[in-house]
Amino acid sequence: MDAKRRYTLALSCPDRVGIVAAVSTFLASHNGWIVEASHHADHGSARFFMRQEILAESLFFDLPELRRLFAPIAAQFGMDWRVTDSAVKHRIVLMVSREDHCLDDLLYRWRAQEFGFDVACVISNHESLRGFVEWHGIPYHHVPVTPEKKPQAFSEVLRLFEQYRGDTLVLARYMQILPPQVCLALPGRIVNIHHSFLPSFAGARPYHQAYARGVKLIGATCHYVTADLDAGPIIEQDTVRVDHGDFVEDLVRYGKDIEKAVLARGLRYHVEGRVLLDANKTVVFR
Amino acid sequence: MDAKRRYTLALSCPDRVGIVAAVSTFLASHNGWIVEASHHADHGSARFFMRQEILAESLFFDLPELRRLFAPIAAQFGMDWRVTDSAVKHRIVLMVSREDHCLDDLLYRWRAQEFGFDVACVISNHESLRGFVEWHGIPYHHVPVTPEKKPQAFSEVLRLFEQYRGDTLVLARYMQILPPQVCLALPGRIVNIHHSFLPSFAGARPYHQAYARGVKLIGATCHYVTADLDAGPIIEQDTVRVDHGDFVEDLVRYGKDIEKAVLARGLRYHVEGRVLLDANKTVVFR
Amino acid sequence: MDAKRRYTLALSCPDRVGIVAAVSTFLASHNGWIVEASHHADHGSARFFMRQEILAESLFFDLPELRRLFAPIAAQFGMDWRVTDSAVKHRIVLMVSREDHCLDDLLYRWRAQEFGFDVACVISNHESLRGFVEWHGIPYHHVPVTPEKKPQAFSEVLRLFEQYRGDTLVLARYMQILPPQVCLALPGRIVNIHHSFLPSFAGARPYHQAYARGVKLIGATCHYVTADLDAGPIIEQDTVRVDHGDFVEDLVRYGKDIEKAVLARGLRYHVEGRVLLDANKTVVFR
Amino acid sequence: MDAKRRYTLALSCPDRVGIVAAVSTFLASHNGWIVEASHHADHGSARFFMRQEILAESLFFDLPELRRLFAPIAAQFGMDWRVTDSAVKHRIVLMVSREDHCLDDLLYRWRAQEFGFDVACVISNHESLRGFVEWHGIPYHHVPVTPEKKPQAFSEVLRLFEQYRGDTLVLARYMQILPPQVCLALPGRIVNIHHSFLPSFAGARPYHQAYARGVKLIGATCHYVTADLDAGPIIEQDTVRVDHGDFVEDLVRYGKDIEKAVLARGLRYHVEGRVLLDANKTVVFR
Repeated sequence: MDAKRRYTLALSCPDRVGIVAAVSTFLASHNGWIVEASHHADHGSARFFMRQEILAESLFFDLPELRRLFAPIAAQFGMDWRVTDSAVKHRIVLMVSREDHCLDDLLYRWRAQEFGFDVACVISNHESLRGFVEWHGIPYHHVPVTPEKKPQAFSEVLRLFEQYRGDTLVLARYMQILPPQVCLALPGRIVNIHHSFLPSFAGARPYHQAYARGVKLIGATCHYVTADLDAGPIIEQDTVRVDHGDFVEDLVRYGKDIEKAVLARGLRYHVEGRVLLDANKTVVFR
Repeated sequence: MDAKRRYTLALSCPDRVGIVAAVSTFLASHNGWIVEASHHADHGSARFFMRQEILAESLFFDLPELRRLFAPIAAQFGMDWRVTDSAVKHRIVLMVSREDHCLDDLLYRWRAQEFGFDVACVISNHESLRGFVEWHGIPYHHVPVTPEKKPQAFSEVLRLFEQYRGDTLVLARYMQILPPQVCLALPGRIVNIHHSFLPSFAGARPYHQAYARGVKLIGATCHYVTADLDAGPIIEQDTVRVDHGDFVEDLVRYGKDIEKAVLARGLRYHVEGRVLLDANKTVVFR
Repeated sequence: MDAKRRYTLALSCPDRVGIVAAVSTFLASHNGWIVEASHHADHGSARFFMRQEILAESLFFDLPELRRLFAPIAAQFGMDWRVTDSAVKHRIVLMVSREDHCLDDLLYRWRAQEFGFDVACVISNHESLRGFVEWHGIPYHHVPVTPEKKPQAFSEVLRLFEQYRGDTLVLARYMQILPPQVCLALPGRIVNIHHSFLPSFAGARPYHQAYARGVKLIGATCHYVTADLDAGPIIEQDTVRVDHGDFVEDLVRYGKDIEKAVLARGLRYHVEGRVLLDANKTVVFR
Repeated sequence: MDAKRRYTLALSCPDRVGIVAAVSTFLASHNGWIVEASHHADHGSARFFMRQEILAESLFFDLPELRRLFAPIAAQFGMDWRVTDSAVKHRIVLMVSREDHCLDDLLYRWRAQEFGFDVACVISNHESLRGFVEWHGIPYHHVPVTPEKKPQAFSEVLRLFEQYRGDTLVLARYMQILPPQVCLALPGRIVNIHHSFLPSFAGARPYHQAYARGVKLIGATCHYVTADLDAGPIIEQDTVRVDHGDFVEDLVRYGKDIEKAVLARGLRYHVEGRVLLDANKTVVFR
């Protein structure tokens, strides 16, 4: 058995005395060796959040049995919960348009196996990146989006997501607005990178907006997509300094590096089960 | 004569060939030793910006003569220009309410003589900080602001600013909105610290807004005050990382340190003549 | 009873299955409401580290009883442990020389009650800062240090530390090397701020060393003092960008702000029981 | 003619009155439109540094004539100088071992034409990265390095550098120490990325050293290679926060992102003629 294999339990429930005791006593009683543990109690929502990484081989049983045995505790505390297995890779469906810096960055991290994901396929509204993607042995689907055929195009996107058994849809600088049918079909499962420090400069051409306002830092935001444009729960953000000598093209260039970094970090947190939703905010156990 | 004494020439004018040549030839012909020089050409506004620090003792004449001799060149190129003398300290009138972290920080920098300013007086709409200010030997004026007496209060502020021969009015967490009469009376001479990364979270209670939105970084903005609330030219900004475990009170606490740092840096740039206005943006020669 | 009063349990012990279960079951059985919890298992040293903040009023008993009841569990797991009470302020004895930026910063944070400490007294080898310290109502002791009287001087320092019932000795830019007698008398209880990013530029005049090497960032390090100069466990560090235009005096000026920030953060972690020693390294539960 | 084509003049000389006047008057007299200008006077070495970007089409003549006309001024002031042409791409010879993150990053920036360089060829002491490099249409040379054949191997490296008319040799995580014959043959023309914040953790396995010391930030350094290992002039550095929960493998992972960013920035500065040597330090006109 893989000595590094881990089961990750992530849960949230109404806060009260005894949650940690119940979960840790359950795990200890089955010899579960906790490798990493994180807790958070949100004072506003009065909810409790927990994530535990357990060494798989320390347990006396397998994952289905773990789920079966834990279910009564989860029911007792009213938990939203899931257990994932580090031996099973997270399947990502990548959407891109013409800008390829985030695509290149994620494909590199996939080749280097920096964290546990596979790129199931790439979907684009352009043909231009086919060669680079297919060099990696990854399927590439060109789904054009025109105003009149937008509903059909996004039905095809959802069909491909199903066909490739995607876990998460990642918008790596995909320059089309997803219609509500897609947003609502995959709640908490669509990750976007927006090229501004939200809530500043939502919508189109954020670097032009930033240049016009004369800000001294620009940023990027990785967030879950909801039907409300650029207003979903934020997973990760970062900023970089610019100055009066930088034109819009310079902002775009600096921005690319921040976008790549923020998307890669945000996606890793998501894939590793470190992100829990708390209404329109996130708990991120880094 | 003070070997470190410097004259600082700061100017802007329509961009064209020959500006640097004209200014540097003028200075060289009078033996001017340039200690620091910065240029910027704005492609959008087609204006040119320049700042030169000259060793005072290297010139054959004094400051009034420098101004007299430079005036024809300035006229030829249509320059907005000023020359300041490092031997003359910049006079600041500080406005505060109850929060004292920026006040404490600036008074420390004044005691330590970190850069060339004097605090002419402190004006507050509360009495609470009188003791600490007066310990420094700095006059403290209590000017209460009530809805019905707001015009009179701000007339008094302007009168004090005149009486103390202020160069710049600094709002160091002064929690009242300045009326247009004050904003318009002192264009480019009122410096504010806003406790958010503008343009996000303008207006009241920005830390509460940031907490509600679930951003992963908070920030502060030092800007010139105009009649348009929180929309004046930005001088300096910075951000700091927060996470789900931080409540509003934690954001306030981290924010204080960012506010202090951003105001101190922005004010130093302003006092040292490093900030030139370019419509609603700034050129900052750091 | 104070609704915000908390008991903080911090412990470390050899790692094994069941530690979290034992501690959390103990707390839950006495109705302990956990406000904040952090764990860490160090793979190298095979030790486990834990910190729990419990709402004081949620327990059925007081602090001495908590300690009495927990002792058998601590013994069973071979724990190093302590419980502190947020209602009892941490007593700091501050040592300074002539540089006053860290002193000013910490006294401001004390006035603002940013975290739970009191300044029991200030000890300096100079008289220069007496006025500012005494304005705060804090005792100031001038203990001169001369090469021939160094042992006596530091005996006096230890005596004052005892007399004022100090919990921690903080070297806020105290420019004398503590003799082994002091370092060994207060293990893990002396906090220093060093004005470089250790291990670079240990020893004297680090900004001059940094300038000579031409580094592009400078830093500061908050660490515990051991008998081995500038080599004790690191609590907190940070860096700031400099460039070729910055002279040594500029590095000193930028450095002051980093020193203040790093010492304040490191000291807060220490005072709040967030720092646990792991051989010559620290676990910091931020 | 290309409206964006620029000539870049970079020079250093002993500091004195009149340098800027002479250069800017020369340029203005030939209608030279200065797009970007930077100056620096080093107080220690008493040298003056200058960089000017001139719009090529604004001049009345071509590059050889510009060089011919400027030579007498350069001679008068004893200048080290060069003029480069943005229409001529800088030719880089990349050296790598097995780690490919910096290689991948630079090839992406080359594909995206982020700044003006071409990758003339890649040289490696391993075969493993041939496929990815050749997919780009870039020649790949495997030059094995064994202890007994090290001199021959590096003669071959120098021969390839000549054959491909390289301007700069870039060590993109090349894990062999260059022999003095190479270092001395290409002064100021070899750029390395070192995976620590120098001068901390020079030499082998810097992330292991950093982990053992327990630092709270790790970094990377881009520098010119001299015969003195990891001690050449520093071009660019950066740091990233780590904590007690990060093992060596985590430091390696975070470090990759910093290494990529620092090498890309440092190389851009170098390629754009923004880096001037000042003894063992650099002036970097960003």
